[in-house]
Amino acid sequence: MDAAEMKKQFANQIRSGESVDDRFVVSEKFLARKKDGNPFLTLAFSDKTGVVKGVAWDDAENLARTVAIGDIVHVTGVANQYRETIQIIVKSMAAVPRDTVEPSDFIASTRRNTDQMMERLMKVADTIKTPHLKALLAAFWEDDDFVRQFKTAPAAKKMHHAYIGGLLEHTLSLALLADRVAEHYGGIDRDMLIAGAILHDIGKTRELEYENRIDYSMAGRLMSHIVIGIEMIEKKIAAMNHFPPVPALLLKHMVISHHGSRELGSPEPPKTLESVLLNYLDEIDAKINGIREFMASHEPGAEWTSYHKLLERFFYKGT
Amino acid sequence: MDAAEMKKQFANQIRSGESVDDRFVVSEKFLARKKDGNPFLTLAFSDKTGVVKGVAWDDAENLARTVAIGDIVHVTGVANQYRETIQIIVKSMAAVPRDTVEPSDFIASTRRNTDQMMERLMKVADTIKTPHLKALLAAFWEDDDFVRQFKTAPAAKKMHHAYIGGLLEHTLSLALLADRVAEHYGGIDRDMLIAGAILHDIGKTRELEYENRIDYSMAGRLMSHIVIGIEMIEKKIAAMNHFPPVPALLLKHMVISHHGSRELGSPEPPKTLESVLLNYLDEIDAKINGIREFMASHEPGAEWTSYHKLLERFFYKGT
Amino acid sequence: MDAAEMKKQFANQIRSGESVDDRFVVSEKFLARKKDGNPFLTLAFSDKTGVVKGVAWDDAENLARTVAIGDIVHVTGVANQYRETIQIIVKSMAAVPRDTVEPSDFIASTRRNTDQMMERLMKVADTIKTPHLKALLAAFWEDDDFVRQFKTAPAAKKMHHAYIGGLLEHTLSLALLADRVAEHYGGIDRDMLIAGAILHDIGKTRELEYENRIDYSMAGRLMSHIVIGIEMIEKKIAAMNHFPPVPALLLKHMVISHHGSRELGSPEPPKTLESVLLNYLDEIDAKINGIREFMASHEPGAEWTSYHKLLERFFYKGT
Amino acid sequence: MDAAEMKKQFANQIRSGESVDDRFVVSEKFLARKKDGNPFLTLAFSDKTGVVKGVAWDDAENLARTVAIGDIVHVTGVANQYRETIQIIVKSMAAVPRDTVEPSDFIASTRRNTDQMMERLMKVADTIKTPHLKALLAAFWEDDDFVRQFKTAPAAKKMHHAYIGGLLEHTLSLALLADRVAEHYGGIDRDMLIAGAILHDIGKTRELEYENRIDYSMAGRLMSHIVIGIEMIEKKIAAMNHFPPVPALLLKHMVISHHGSRELGSPEPPKTLESVLLNYLDEIDAKINGIREFMASHEPGAEWTSYHKLLERFFYKGT
Amino acid sequence: MDAAEMKKQFANQIRSGESVDDRFVVSEKFLARKKDGNPFLTLAFSDKTGVVKGVAWDDAENLARTVAIGDIVHVTGVANQYRETIQIIVKSMAAVPRDTVEPSDFIASTRRNTDQMMERLMKVADTIKTPHLKALLAAFWEDDDFVRQFKTAPAAKKMHHAYIGGLLEHTLSLALLADRVAEHYGGIDRDMLIAGAILHDIGKTRELEYENRIDYSMAGRLMSHIVIGIEMIEKKIAAMNHFPPVPALLLKHMVISHHGSRELGSPEPPKTLESVLLNYLDEIDAKINGIREFMASHEPGAEWTSYHKLLERFFYKGT
Amino acid sequence: MDAAEMKKQFANQIRSGESVDDRFVVSEKFLARKKDGNPFLTLAFSDKTGVVKGVAWDDAENLARTVAIGDIVHVTGVANQYRETIQIIVKSMAAVPRDTVEPSDFIASTRRNTDQMMERLMKVADTIKTPHLKALLAAFWEDDDFVRQFKTAPAAKKMHHAYIGGLLEHTLSLALLADRVAEHYGGIDRDMLIAGAILHDIGKTRELEYENRIDYSMAGRLMSHIVIGIEMIEKKIAAMNHFPPVPALLLKHMVISHHGSRELGSPEPPKTLESVLLNYLDEIDAKINGIREFMASHEPGAEWTSYHKLLERFFYKGT
Repeated sequence: MDAAEMKKQFANQIRSGESVDDRFVVSEKFLARKKDGNPFLTLAFSDKTGVVKGVAWDDAENLARTVAIGDIVHVTGVANQYRETIQIIVKSMAAVPRDTVEPSDFIASTRRNTDQMMERLMKVADTIKTPHLKALLAAFWEDDDFVRQFKTAPAAKKMHHAYIGGLLEHTLSLALLADRVAEHYGGIDRDMLIAGAILHDIGKTRELEYENRIDYSMAGRLMSHIVIGIEMIEKKIAAMNHFPPVPALLLKHMVISHHGSRELGSPEPPKTLESVLLNYLDEIDAKINGIREFMASHEPGAEWTSYHKLLERFFYKGT
Repeated sequence: MDAAEMKKQFANQIRSGESVDDRFVVSEKFLARKKDGNPFLTLAFSDKTGVVKGVAWDDAENLARTVAIGDIVHVTGVANQYRETIQIIVKSMAAVPRDTVEPSDFIASTRRNTDQMMERLMKVADTIKTPHLKALLAAFWEDDDFVRQFKTAPAAKKMHHAYIGGLLEHTLSLALLADRVAEHYGGIDRDMLIAGAILHDIGKTRELEYENRIDYSMAGRLMSHIVIGIEMIEKKIAAMNHFPPVPALLLKHMVISHHGSRELGSPEPPKTLESVLLNYLDEIDAKINGIREFMASHEPGAEWTSYHKLLERFFYKGT
Repeated sequence: MDAAEMKKQFANQIRSGESVDDRFVVSEKFLARKKDGNPFLTLAFSDKTGVVKGVAWDDAENLARTVAIGDIVHVTGVANQYRETIQIIVKSMAAVPRDTVEPSDFIASTRRNTDQMMERLMKVADTIKTPHLKALLAAFWEDDDFVRQFKTAPAAKKMHHAYIGGLLEHTLSLALLADRVAEHYGGIDRDMLIAGAILHDIGKTRELEYENRIDYSMAGRLMSHIVIGIEMIEKKIAAMNHFPPVPALLLKHMVISHHGSRELGSPEPPKTLESVLLNYLDEIDAKINGIREFMASHEPGAEWTSYHKLLERFFYKGT
Repeated sequence: MDAAEMKKQFANQIRSGESVDDRFVVSEKFLARKKDGNPFLTLAFSDKTGVVKGVAWDDAENLARTVAIGDIVHVTGVANQYRETIQIIVKSMAAVPRDTVEPSDFIASTRRNTDQMMERLMKVADTIKTPHLKALLAAFWEDDDFVRQFKTAPAAKKMHHAYIGGLLEHTLSLALLADRVAEHYGGIDRDMLIAGAILHDIGKTRELEYENRIDYSMAGRLMSHIVIGIEMIEKKIAAMNHFPPVPALLLKHMVISHHGSRELGSPEPPKTLESVLLNYLDEIDAKINGIREFMASHEPGAEWTSYHKLLERFFYKGT
Repeated sequence: MDAAEMKKQFANQIRSGESVDDRFVVSEKFLARKKDGNPFLTLAFSDKTGVVKGVAWDDAENLARTVAIGDIVHVTGVANQYRETIQIIVKSMAAVPRDTVEPSDFIASTRRNTDQMMERLMKVADTIKTPHLKALLAAFWEDDDFVRQFKTAPAAKKMHHAYIGGLLEHTLSLALLADRVAEHYGGIDRDMLIAGAILHDIGKTRELEYENRIDYSMAGRLMSHIVIGIEMIEKKIAAMNHFPPVPALLLKHMVISHHGSRELGSPEPPKTLESVLLNYLDEIDAKINGIREFMASHEPGAEWTSYHKLLERFFYKGT
Repeated sequence: MDAAEMKKQFANQIRSGESVDDRFVVSEKFLARKKDGNPFLTLAFSDKTGVVKGVAWDDAENLARTVAIGDIVHVTGVANQYRETIQIIVKSMAAVPRDTVEPSDFIASTRRNTDQMMERLMKVADTIKTPHLKALLAAFWEDDDFVRQFKTAPAAKKMHHAYIGGLLEHTLSLALLADRVAEHYGGIDRDMLIAGAILHDIGKTRELEYENRIDYSMAGRLMSHIVIGIEMIEKKIAAMNHFPPVPALLLKHMVISHHGSRELGSPEPPKTLESVLLNYLDEIDAKINGIREFMASHEPGAEWTSYHKLLERFFYKGT
């Protein structure tokens, strides 16, 4: 990585008239055809700061063949303004090896140490006493492919924890929050709550693609992370042979219902105390993280953030 | 069955003051406690015409132990009116063997021949040419447990095809309707559409309980028939070893999206032409069946039905 | 209280044909007129178990004058069924002194010790370090009228903590929950969060009437507990003379926004981290309490509750 | 009318056990079949106070033939309670001539003088100066069938002005209100506003049936009063030959858009100042009339009404 | 048409800095006034590829007089970027005769043969056996003005079949689809269904303007195609003299209710089996056509479309 | 004011490439940091015609210190296009004294005379006869700070009466409209209606900032004008000592409920005849004013306005 060249141009700062000569991720690629029948290539280039459009008028078919969505490419060209947006008129574009770049230039990452977070999460999991739940989590931890993806995946494309390691960061925060709240109310099955918190979003390891850029995968668009997560849990449970059926249903119900209502994507609403609680705690963790990220994207000095379009309000952040 | 005694009293016709002496299914059972500490038993009794409440003041704990929800019991007692409803004051209640009753007295059944419907559906399935889809359906047909449940299950607790054999009747009707429409539009993958039509509701075989009465099962309430159906398909696909991954996703997407929107219980909306079409055809078949059943429940002579509470309108049925 | 006669008939257990001879709270009273011009009196009688309708055909105008809504009266008469409901045909009805009855027969109360809860809440308040917030809470604690009402008021007419002492029970639970969560996230003003949790619902001391029965007061119907609460806080703040203006706005915002959205009655949605968090924690405490009360109203033995009409689902409570 | 016998039993006051021997309107009639194959007749009887159910066990087919929905019949029988409702067990039932009854016993009427109201409305219409609008209204006034229906029709089945003459009463009130408001704002075409106010609901003369009882007509259910009204106006305009096309569109738009939005039944929302204003004034007149009727149905003495289910609140009416 | 000059510049491809010298349709025209009091003219120019803004600083009042919305004009000038959009600074602009241009350059057309489609539709209409429905359709076919408009009109401004001939294409597809489905269910009045399918959207011939460009007409905006269609049918029915009243209501109901609900613009929801079915089939035909057009606007190679803003999802189109 | 320099450049007319040299209000100011660590300043400049963005690359920290949001500054620089918007590259920027500018250049004002409007409103208030209501209004008129703010405040940031003096203009119009309507219906407390109309929006004097530009104040965002208004009224009532409690509740209810429903920001819906009426009249005055302003922003000549995004329709304004 020492040899990795530093990136100097970033997607959200390129201005009209500027020469472009740097590396970007290809995040969209459509081959189109002009009225005179000649092909051209419309593109989008991304890095950790955002996305910038591009167009290649010459050699379009050849370029379309040689670069793929997700590739890191070296682009030269000139930026100009077209309609509502900046667009790079591409002169040349060629894929570069991944080991010649600094990955964190292209996709944002958690600021926290993923190994430490993983270790911390496993410790929380170790406090679970119910044998079959403990065994199920152990089965996930022993699955190296899973652990690698789980430590890398973001928790979302936008909105909250939308960065490499975000899924683990969100999961750990939620598990610790559940741990704080579990004993406030009597009658809560603490082990079920903690296990649900740890497993609720594991489908996101396959719902999203997060090699170089974050986007939905084909499986994500067609199945949703909830259904993918159920398949992952069911597969591990089937391999265990001895997981009792009622707790299996109750655990899967935690995953199925964790969005809280059908409108929000859960085929069934929460019907147990543990799933009702998990839904609220998950919403707290997502919203507080999202709002804090939004506040942090504003420099100190102003008391109010700009308007948050999705949440439809200004936030007061103090000075 | 010859020996089966004919049922004479039906749930929706019992009137205040009437003596009760007949068989019913126990569909609800709660042990409660009076102010003076003595237990009593609240019950619900059902048959093919509906449900009637019941209460046992004496010997409550013993009765609670000896009958289970779903049992067919012989009840004696007197009906009276309590608040908004008729209620049987139970004098005696005892389970009777299932072979001493006529099952169709207790739960409504399709008026059509299920063997013939099954045969017809298999013929439609046979017109599918894509090898892996054909093989998947064959795997279901060869699964005797599945076929038995699939021929018996209702399609719903209320609203449409809510009777024994209703799932098969609805599935066959939908598959034939899909067959009529498939070639109207170019670019439709007919085999995918037909396979999706046949498999879209198979999760209902486990979402509902339909032994003696129709109700949601524990798995149904906690998981929904959509997620159950995905588990059933995934299990068959996993056993096939060679099912190609993209068609597997597309087929599962048909099941996942067949309610059309998150509000209606689909975690993802339809994103392929075939799934868009399946969603509409399913809605047509459910609505037309439901409205026709509703019209048929009114005697000839009146042009209009009574008010349909769920669909919020009167229907014109002509004379 | 020793002399208080035990109540034997309860509103939710009176059956058609039964003689009535016991005390109830008058919770509704309308003087109406028959076609022949003679007046009659429609009534509702309540106790801790619910409400039963009543009608007095004779001496209606006199009775209307001598009893008031909220009075405890001794009623004699006969219960019969009228349309969808049980109704007492009143023969006699006369107010009885409050000290001849056991108040807890007429209105449900918290099962917990209110003095201990109050003491515990004051201890939580004592952990607040910000001087003006600490002083404001002290001002409330020194207001004997307020403390008396605060220890007695229910938190709602229905749904959750709908019993004498329910407001205090809910407030204490919320303050303790806030205490558990406050330090999970950095950047939260713990003192503001705790103060907001303690004061968020104080308007309910005047929104509801809870002498003998729970109902909305005139001020509650016309102003809502949120606006009443703001008036109460503003009055205390004005008397303090030195409460800094920005924290005053931020604290009042906690109260104004604690329902989370306009649809749910908050004129402004939460715009600070603390108010976002308070809104979720309040919802958790209300929902978990409500669902647990609902589960507890079912006898052990059944795994599922009956259908919860407002939350539109069955709940799994286990055995 | 002198000979008309006074009605003594009214639908909303019949109690269980009472003998029935009086005249009612037949408002529903369904021939059904018992399990043993014998027919019975379910009925509903109405008068100005409401509706009561009925059933005839004997001679059902004959009775079904000899009475029609809308007939006034003399009924004898006994009232009892069946499930949630009072029901007359019919012994005999025979149609009586309309001139032997007092019509106002069967269907409520405006308390105001319809001739005077009609005269007053025509005077308002006379203040319109635009020739084609004046001529169009004249064409309606000269249509005797229309005037007769317009003076008799109710404005609704429920909710507001739901009585004979209610349409005229509502129309007059709205026209006078429009007159008061028309000149408050500059740029309003007063003549268009007044003409729209007068004609906005004329389709209700055919949307509803109001001979003996108020119910939707077949045309009303299938077409809505908005579309019926457009047909009525278009027919008159076509007969005039010289009505200019743009004002014709603008006037019809007043009728089409007067419910304010698609959700409320207007195919297009108001797009002119006059139609925006008409929509609000119509809503004021309907709501104020409806709430005042609701308040008036409560005896003096209580400050608050009972709960208004549709408007979802209690109203404060003062003492 | 031989002499028609080929258009070379298209609205969606004009870039900043480019000289403009070609023909466009004037689709918007507003005369505005600068701070110094001088007038200027803001314009929009359209062709089959879309719309581009324009502004004329000089000679504005004269230009405003000499060109009308809907004219085809020859424009010269320079394109530049203004705020979020490309804008032509107009140097000269003059109307050109319609026969010197190729109409299909300015407004998109169906790719199918309208005469053949019309013939096919008439054949479907011929299969109707009910005399009055057959006669009504014949009355439309004999109305040359109607047929000419019906063969030309688009089915919408956007979304589906939004091109010349689109109404006929949609109507034919729907009628053939109805034909396939009509006999799948018993109890459907096939003739009513087919007649409804053919007539459901005829109001669009007047709801839209489609001379040179597609936009709503004044009648369309003020009345909606549903009400216009009813007027057209009612006029033909009135001229027939013998059309029976009940079928007339039922047929008009097909048109009135074909959007399915008030929210979507139907004053009454479908209340007959035929209208329920028509509503779904209409929605299938519109959606499938719209999605296929959207898929087809993407070049082969990519599996997924771009994001569909109105339907709020990506579509999988395969490769 | 004579010496005030005329403003020549206006925010909504600055074009790319233009030199900027004029006065504007600073309406946004955020200090940001480039990748290389150097600070820059993003700005927004407003005047009565709208808002234009700005950026200062040099001397950013110094500029950030010396100008405040709300200052009028003299700006020099060059305008260019950046992404979707025009942006001034600031060369210099310095605050100018308020008395060297013409205030009406920076913020739009009512076209009517505020002194005359105030006088007129006080006359309407004088027609109130109920002593405590009359006295309460007098208390407001005697509060010079209040009157000054009340005569200056706008009624909104956007949509309707969004200009200096707009609150008074709207309040006067509403009071006069209420006066016209009050006597149309019997049973309306005219004094309560008029008093409510006058006071309903007084919280807007503090909800908005309107020195040089219109924006929400901190109190406005955190409390809403409804709650602020209640605090203002309660303070005056408390100072009067003798205001009777029930009318105080009813008056405050007019303010609390005047948006008509929770969704629209009223914590309680209208529950008195007067508050129901006030809500509709307020909506009429806001909508009619808003639509007329929108129509007036279009030059004569075109019959239709452009599309109104919030009201989702085109309006017909005639020629």
